[in-house]
Amino acid sequence: MYTLYGSPSTAGTAIHWMLLELGVPFELKLLDFDKGEHKTPEYLALNPDGVVPTLIVDGAPVTQMASLATLLAERHPEAGFAPPLGSPERAQYLSWTLWLANSFQPHFRAWFYPHEPAGGEAQEAVQAAARARIEAGLARLDAHLAGRDYIVGDRFTSMDLLATILCRWSRNMPKPATEWPNLKRYLDRIRQRPALREVHAREGLTDWIDG
Amino acid sequence: MYTLYGSPSTAGTAIHWMLLELGVPFELKLLDFDKGEHKTPEYLALNPDGVVPTLIVDGAPVTQMASLATLLAERHPEAGFAPPLGSPERAQYLSWTLWLANSFQPHFRAWFYPHEPAGGEAQEAVQAAARARIEAGLARLDAHLAGRDYIVGDRFTSMDLLATILCRWSRNMPKPATEWPNLKRYLDRIRQRPALREVHAREGLTDWIDG
Ligand SMILES: N[C@@H](CCC(=O)N[C@@H](CS)C(=O)NCC(=O)O)C(=O)O
Ligand SMILES: N[C@@H](CCC(=O)N[C@@H](CS)C(=O)NCC(=O)O)C(=O)O
Repeated sequence: MYTLYGSPSTAGTAIHWMLLELGVPFELKLLDFDKGEHKTPEYLALNPDGVVPTLIVDGAPVTQMASLATLLAERHPEAGFAPPLGSPERAQYLSWTLWLANSFQPHFRAWFYPHEPAGGEAQEAVQAAARARIEAGLARLDAHLAGRDYIVGDRFTSMDLLATILCRWSRNMPKPATEWPNLKRYLDRIRQRPALREVHAREGLTDWIDG
Repeated sequence: MYTLYGSPSTAGTAIHWMLLELGVPFELKLLDFDKGEHKTPEYLALNPDGVVPTLIVDGAPVTQMASLATLLAERHPEAGFAPPLGSPERAQYLSWTLWLANSFQPHFRAWFYPHEPAGGEAQEAVQAAARARIEAGLARLDAHLAGRDYIVGDRFTSMDLLATILCRWSRNMPKPATEWPNLKRYLDRIRQRPALREVHAREGLTDWIDG
């Protein structure tokens, strides 16, 4: 039994989706950011950064969206969401997971929180730089997806789930992920997954899922 | 047989160190950044970001420092550098690896490349923000290390290796990692590891290793 601390339309959505994909029992606690529920002393004791997601695993809090997707994939191997240790796809699976976490996701943080990278200065320049990096990353993903259905191997893995959530975050940006043809084809297929549609319904998200 | 593309005193040093820890055969190609050897078309074909490290694994290029440390740990389980799948330490091992990659390492990138986050504007403010985030991260590691020898469990793992390299990057900053008492004790122990001393010798690095 897992307990997920999330909030609608955030990094928590990725782990909510993952739990639905796996079909495992979990309790969901959606935090209200407007009320500052992610900055209370109780929540900071679980997640010192005051961000979502946090997943309670075997009684202990575990943080970081990408680590949780990877951890859940390996805890539930029957779903096939991670190439097994020693398999040929394993290197690219880990490399793309870390590329998303280290070289792609942080630019979304800068786009959505433009006061952070320069302490409040130059926020337009921060967003312009973040936008350029995000578009370069989307172009990289698009090129990689030419002739492929999934990013690594021939089946959906936890890093496709992470990539999809990050692509979703671009939906109101000047050039969203769906403007790239291979990415659009990829996302259109993934947006048919029942668990992704279900997480949209449960979190009350109505945009993007249908186009 | 691995081939590592690195450069002295960079993220490549982490993987060079890891290969020496494991005692596996490898070929080392040190790129000369001053000559732009990391931006040639040949190298960009291996690593589109034009950064180090890149490791050739079973004939294919694999990128991202944190993914390579994790991958090498699982490819050589006899070294014990990763808690086995299903072990109680696994969740914290993955979470700290991703915390380092997603929430800590990017601030060093901003410190060393302050023209990137705001396209050349506000570079002093970028460095000030990066410094504050790095010091907050070091304080987090220091607090976690109270009463512990290693970050996860009771033995050295690939994420201690990553943490050590990132701590080293703070050595010329206003408040380096060694100013925090628990981190200093931790780093002093790790700096005795023969493979870390060997990588310093092989890359011609003389500072930091002795205090
Ligand atoms: N490194 C974290 C970052 C998560 C993150 O930035 N979450 C955002 C929502 S998408 C958040 O909780 N923001 C609230 C805040 O920063 O105050 C992870 O990958 O889990
Ligand atoms: N996301 C990469 C970043 C590596 C990185 O920033 N490497 C630096 C050296 S520490 C580099 O190659 N810099 C050269 C450049 O950016 O031109 C990783 O974690 O492997």
